[in-house]
Amino acid sequence: MNDQKKVSIIVFSGDLDKLLAAFFIATGAAAAGQQVTMFFTFWGLKLIQQTTVKPRGLNWLKKLFGLMLKPGPDRRALSKMNFLGAGPVLLKQLMRQSKIPSLAELMQTAKSLGVKFVACSTSMEIMGVTRQSLIPEVEQVAGVTTFLVEAQVSSLNLFI
Amino acid sequence: MNDQKKVSIIVFSGDLDKLLAAFFIATGAAAAGQQVTMFFTFWGLKLIQQTTVKPRGLNWLKKLFGLMLKPGPDRRALSKMNFLGAGPVLLKQLMRQSKIPSLAELMQTAKSLGVKFVACSTSMEIMGVTRQSLIPEVEQVAGVTTFLVEAQVSSLNLFI
Amino acid sequence: MNDQKKVSIIVFSGDLDKLLAAFFIATGAAAAGQQVTMFFTFWGLKLIQQTTVKPRGLNWLKKLFGLMLKPGPDRRALSKMNFLGAGPVLLKQLMRQSKIPSLAELMQTAKSLGVKFVACSTSMEIMGVTRQSLIPEVEQVAGVTTFLVEAQVSSLNLFI
Repeated sequence: MNDQKKVSIIVFSGDLDKLLAAFFIATGAAAAGQQVTMFFTFWGLKLIQQTTVKPRGLNWLKKLFGLMLKPGPDRRALSKMNFLGAGPVLLKQLMRQSKIPSLAELMQTAKSLGVKFVACSTSMEIMGVTRQSLIPEVEQVAGVTTFLVEAQVSSLNLFI
Repeated sequence: MNDQKKVSIIVFSGDLDKLLAAFFIATGAAAAGQQVTMFFTFWGLKLIQQTTVKPRGLNWLKKLFGLMLKPGPDRRALSKMNFLGAGPVLLKQLMRQSKIPSLAELMQTAKSLGVKFVACSTSMEIMGVTRQSLIPEVEQVAGVTTFLVEAQVSSLNLFI
Repeated sequence: MNDQKKVSIIVFSGDLDKLLAAFFIATGAAAAGQQVTMFFTFWGLKLIQQTTVKPRGLNWLKKLFGLMLKPGPDRRALSKMNFLGAGPVLLKQLMRQSKIPSLAELMQTAKSLGVKFVACSTSMEIMGVTRQSLIPEVEQVAGVTTFLVEAQVSSLNLFI
């Protein structure tokens, strides 16, 4: 009998503030011994894309969409008060002052605690994101059906 | 004994990207045999309003609020990168290329799979939305209490 | 044996429309006899800060971040259609016309129905929000671990 609590988070947003919230919850739950799955979809995909891979061989529409948002944890905007990037700089500075881990550090902590990263296959198809362009920390590429199986056995589900 | 899994989604957003996420989850769950209720509130109400009904007999405040956002699935903005409507055009084009169903098609699929559409009565009152101006696919107009009864027996609850 | 249903809401947003949604659900659930906890984090912290307290003794970065958003229920923006504050004025007017309680009234109702207000300690630290600057209705300051204990025994969890 497996009594381990499960947490399932849909990471839809690509905004720094919401991603931080998602990872504070994910790492907190994993540290408490819970099994956490993060399902990255739509704007959230940006976080788990490699920063060094150039879009190649895609049609211009997908390329355009890919260029509009930068990949990786370091260039995320705020959902509010972004001020052309001044908001995130300010927030990161405040977090450093309080010795709060950065988004990149939270991602590493999440992985070391066994949080599972799943990329949404439908979003990848729409946006022209290939498996190779994702960071190696992503364990699985899956559709909504796979996510739903996970979600239905989770005692905590969040859409962020 | 009824072991059917239930899913309950509060559709608060009126943005194309979030509505697509809501309907991918709803249709995916319904296709897997789960009983899905979508509770449309606030900006989400816009999706289930008829596009042909003109606001009539309302006071000018409600009329103004009604005019600010167009009803129906075809004129939804993106929560990010909207670019005065260029973003949604681009996204729809990408979805067509990948043969992903449109929001309007997903709504039809949801209905044919038995997903239940409920409109939030409080939001309707505030915004001056009448029962007659809603699309016929809406089964029920209900308040938060009715929603909560549904939510408490659902194994998956999301606020989108 | 305690069969009371529990509801746990993460109030991440500081927007009027989303805060109203959170409080309609919270008061509705509490009125139906459910035990409700609201966990205020990030922008949501603004709602539970006193309006009369001036930031003092903070470094300029925290002061700047604190000044960017006004505290309290009366000065919240809309997530959409804010129009430099005209949107919220219009919405509040519409709510008064329909005799829907205001956000400040909903907060009072929530308290009188026993809804528990918890402030996120990590967000407070980052933003330089002190315990003294919070409204007295806040019962507890706690981190994500405390929230997770609550969330895991709740039958309804929402991230708003």
